[in-house]
Amino acid sequence: MQLGLIGLGKMGGNMATRLREKGHDVIGFDYNPEVRDVDSLAELVQRLEAPRIVWLMVPAGEPTAATIRELSGLLEAGDLIIEGGNSHYVDDRKRADELKELGIHYVDAGVSGGVWGRQNGYGIMVGGAPEDIERAKPIFDALTPDSGGGYVHAGGVGAGHFVKMVHNGIEYGMMQAFAEGYELMAASDIVDDVPGTFDSWREGTVVRSWLLDLLVRALEEDPELAGLRGYAQDSGEGRWTVQAAVDHAVPAPVITAALFARFASRQEDSPAMKVIAALRNQFGGHAVTRATEDQA
Amino acid sequence: MQLGLIGLGKMGGNMATRLREKGHDVIGFDYNPEVRDVDSLAELVQRLEAPRIVWLMVPAGEPTAATIRELSGLLEAGDLIIEGGNSHYVDDRKRADELKELGIHYVDAGVSGGVWGRQNGYGIMVGGAPEDIERAKPIFDALTPDSGGGYVHAGGVGAGHFVKMVHNGIEYGMMQAFAEGYELMAASDIVDDVPGTFDSWREGTVVRSWLLDLLVRALEEDPELAGLRGYAQDSGEGRWTVQAAVDHAVPAPVITAALFARFASRQEDSPAMKVIAALRNQFGGHAVTRATEDQA
Amino acid sequence: MQLGLIGLGKMGGNMATRLREKGHDVIGFDYNPEVRDVDSLAELVQRLEAPRIVWLMVPAGEPTAATIRELSGLLEAGDLIIEGGNSHYVDDRKRADELKELGIHYVDAGVSGGVWGRQNGYGIMVGGAPEDIERAKPIFDALTPDSGGGYVHAGGVGAGHFVKMVHNGIEYGMMQAFAEGYELMAASDIVDDVPGTFDSWREGTVVRSWLLDLLVRALEEDPELAGLRGYAQDSGEGRWTVQAAVDHAVPAPVITAALFARFASRQEDSPAMKVIAALRNQFGGHAVTRATEDQA
Amino acid sequence: MQLGLIGLGKMGGNMATRLREKGHDVIGFDYNPEVRDVDSLAELVQRLEAPRIVWLMVPAGEPTAATIRELSGLLEAGDLIIEGGNSHYVDDRKRADELKELGIHYVDAGVSGGVWGRQNGYGIMVGGAPEDIERAKPIFDALTPDSGGGYVHAGGVGAGHFVKMVHNGIEYGMMQAFAEGYELMAASDIVDDVPGTFDSWREGTVVRSWLLDLLVRALEEDPELAGLRGYAQDSGEGRWTVQAAVDHAVPAPVITAALFARFASRQEDSPAMKVIAALRNQFGGHAVTRATEDQA
Repeated sequence: MQLGLIGLGKMGGNMATRLREKGHDVIGFDYNPEVRDVDSLAELVQRLEAPRIVWLMVPAGEPTAATIRELSGLLEAGDLIIEGGNSHYVDDRKRADELKELGIHYVDAGVSGGVWGRQNGYGIMVGGAPEDIERAKPIFDALTPDSGGGYVHAGGVGAGHFVKMVHNGIEYGMMQAFAEGYELMAASDIVDDVPGTFDSWREGTVVRSWLLDLLVRALEEDPELAGLRGYAQDSGEGRWTVQAAVDHAVPAPVITAALFARFASRQEDSPAMKVIAALRNQFGGHAVTRATEDQA
Repeated sequence: MQLGLIGLGKMGGNMATRLREKGHDVIGFDYNPEVRDVDSLAELVQRLEAPRIVWLMVPAGEPTAATIRELSGLLEAGDLIIEGGNSHYVDDRKRADELKELGIHYVDAGVSGGVWGRQNGYGIMVGGAPEDIERAKPIFDALTPDSGGGYVHAGGVGAGHFVKMVHNGIEYGMMQAFAEGYELMAASDIVDDVPGTFDSWREGTVVRSWLLDLLVRALEEDPELAGLRGYAQDSGEGRWTVQAAVDHAVPAPVITAALFARFASRQEDSPAMKVIAALRNQFGGHAVTRATEDQA
Repeated sequence: MQLGLIGLGKMGGNMATRLREKGHDVIGFDYNPEVRDVDSLAELVQRLEAPRIVWLMVPAGEPTAATIRELSGLLEAGDLIIEGGNSHYVDDRKRADELKELGIHYVDAGVSGGVWGRQNGYGIMVGGAPEDIERAKPIFDALTPDSGGGYVHAGGVGAGHFVKMVHNGIEYGMMQAFAEGYELMAASDIVDDVPGTFDSWREGTVVRSWLLDLLVRALEEDPELAGLRGYAQDSGEGRWTVQAAVDHAVPAPVITAALFARFASRQEDSPAMKVIAALRNQFGGHAVTRATEDQA
Repeated sequence: MQLGLIGLGKMGGNMATRLREKGHDVIGFDYNPEVRDVDSLAELVQRLEAPRIVWLMVPAGEPTAATIRELSGLLEAGDLIIEGGNSHYVDDRKRADELKELGIHYVDAGVSGGVWGRQNGYGIMVGGAPEDIERAKPIFDALTPDSGGGYVHAGGVGAGHFVKMVHNGIEYGMMQAFAEGYELMAASDIVDDVPGTFDSWREGTVVRSWLLDLLVRALEEDPELAGLRGYAQDSGEGRWTVQAAVDHAVPAPVITAALFARFASRQEDSPAMKVIAALRNQFGGHAVTRATEDQA
């Protein structure tokens, strides 16, 4: 089927290739003239037959918001926007409500799979009205693995990005679990072969997983991770997961601890620990006037 | 080769079967007369040709300690004990030192794989002197998967149980990460298909893992886990991991949070939270005499 | 000076009393006709001389928002609203911006002190423009303790509620620290006199504090807290603190753990721990088809 | 009454002074010849009238153990050792059992109060048999504050050090709560006066405490803590608290988080976070062979 695809970077570009290989007619737009098929959103909309489907793979936040604002002035009632970037689920819901007044339909899609997706297929998690999902189903089918699986219609608008967010939160926790295990083995004087230990776990154990495969690979390249700094960015999705947990009164100590470990990894020095140091200095010290008075 | 195997329960019995299938001569002892080949440890030792190899698969703690005490009076210098149960790595080191004075060699082996091990092979992590490991290598080879992998000589005595312990600690963290993600999705009003979401993650995502496979299976059987109580035992190994982290000054917030969540799950009521409730009651209350005096 | 005070509940009513005792002219409005001086916001505004000062002590959220909306139609340029309830600092900033367009000034005030405040004075933390703060200073002076202290102009609009929020976050952490210590002593078989231990800490120790005083008092009344359930509500401010920490990339493990402990305390059963139980069941079990295939 | 005091450092020396001021006959021994009254433990024992009381204020661990070993050869049945250092409660119990065979009595005493103790009195938490405690009561009375309080007989042998350990664990949690609150206020662009905010909390708020007094004092000296590094040692007692919590299956997330924050503060770089960085690198990367195969 025909599809407009906005954002032809590493992710969007690969998706376009896979969709075309599966026989879909993709018309792509990007800010980079070298990769695009049309020179403007207006031209994109003009080229698509109504009712149109436009898929966005644009950086989250203002770029996505701006693109949707512009599109909302170009599209017609009955058209469908699929937001495949990393929007916050709360924003999906607001946008869908606004677009609904113009008769424009909205589906959100969480996409995972990175650089291997083009060949192996992507994990696709979608949220939206059943009839909108149904309409775009051939595209989802083309993107997901040939062997089946990798697809869920998780719920109404926002559900796709919500579950993708939770997926990333879980990922944070799993990564941190491996990281703590690594540090403990490396810190002990008892384990001589940390990389070999992780490698042995790839067969027959409870922790076998794709993340373990990646860790083994990283340790093959650099057995003591000597070439790396313990510095980790966090995507917005880890933060959103914690905030959603707080909003829903769900205890999420593991995911939160993993997020906080990343925060701490980026600090040159910890203001909080300066306070601890300051208090410890005070203990040792010279009389603290007001405190001493209270103390009798 | 010839091997004495003490403990022929679900785990030890399956291991004996696999070893025999691979051509090893296993003589087994158990407290259960119906499954054993010999009627006493003394007879077991007598039947084995020196230098002997005896593998223990006995419950951790006193049963293992008592068996080793008795064995140490029966074995001769040059014999080798392989402790394949769930001993604490600290105990391995003490025992090995004591047995060394009698000339008895000691290797510790962490074994994973559960009921699938007999068919698929076990993950085996061993600690001990290279020459002792070398001697028992045919047995390890028979136990590990036919396709290779699943084996590590992690370090000196204790290292096998140490890394098995860390494996279990990581497992705690990973399980809790999935658990928190589940609860968050179930708590939100936005996700209609929680089991389907987990299932979709089995392809193409970062969190794909054996634990995810098991979770999908559990949700197929009981999509809302309605038949279960949120009550989780902890094996000693999770506790030991946290204590080892504390001993080595390694921050392990994720593994620890997972352990504490299990502790809390088993409480009818939380004494700590009674304190929170009591303090909140006091806030609202009638004048607190001494406090008011300090307060001016 | 003259002041309109909206909300004459336990908190607002006591504040009105204290302000009048200090010579201020307080005109009060409340939904409850028995306690109010005027029968409507319109009448309140009419009775106050311009430029007016109106202090709100209304429940947070919609009641406060609605009151401010109505007031914004009644007040004139140059008037000053002091929001003394528990508003979120983000809302303060939005409101102040909206009111600014009408020329209405806005100050936010975090108020602590509970039922003892009327006699002992309140802790007052304010945010706003220096000239607005200066104008209302006689009111702040009347509310804070006679002996001085208990007052800070923390920053621009929102800063008062921000620091009050952080205060409450710290309070969560401190309470939970005492709670964990209590539970550990109660769980051990070694401590015979838990209440006496807390009482002894009121002199000469590092943990002496008003919260300790309250805890000792609670244990005097009920030494084993037998009359309480381990169930704790959370005010919005604990949640906001965690969310602010996440927004600012500040690791806040202690405050967050304290919040999550409250969440967990209110659950009849834990969905997350059902997942742990489900996974543990799967370990023991019958062959898991797809997993076994991967496993070789 | 007469008392032998071993260890005349800052703590022991001040205690000797206070005890003498209260009329007790203190005979002191120290490795430093300049401060001691007798030149050996043997002479100390000789100088004391039986049944003797000997108080130890020696560094924890081997120094305390060695002193007790030597004393056990010098003292007689009926004599009493009071261990006032920072021994682990588990060691107290072992020692008391060993000394009991010699007829030597043992009491453990947790002492808090630091440099202010001499003037203000110490907090004293003791464990032991009632008759032993009774016998030493005049000494405890002299050490504790003149105004009363600051004393508890917490239970049998070990209970004194157990509750002192828990006290320190709670202290860790409280300090970290303040530290997180500080960092959050410092990180926000909304709070202009962080030191003033803490100072305002000393009156009328829930968090008022001796630790807050100390923090205000530290911020008076160095408002941005610019002269400090965020580096914090941990005493053994924080670790022991966490290990006791794990041993007793008590969830202690706040105390543990505070301990882990100290561990992390001392790391030049975090091995765990190197793992996170390594995994993140792998995501972006080139095909991961074995993982890709599994993946279909």
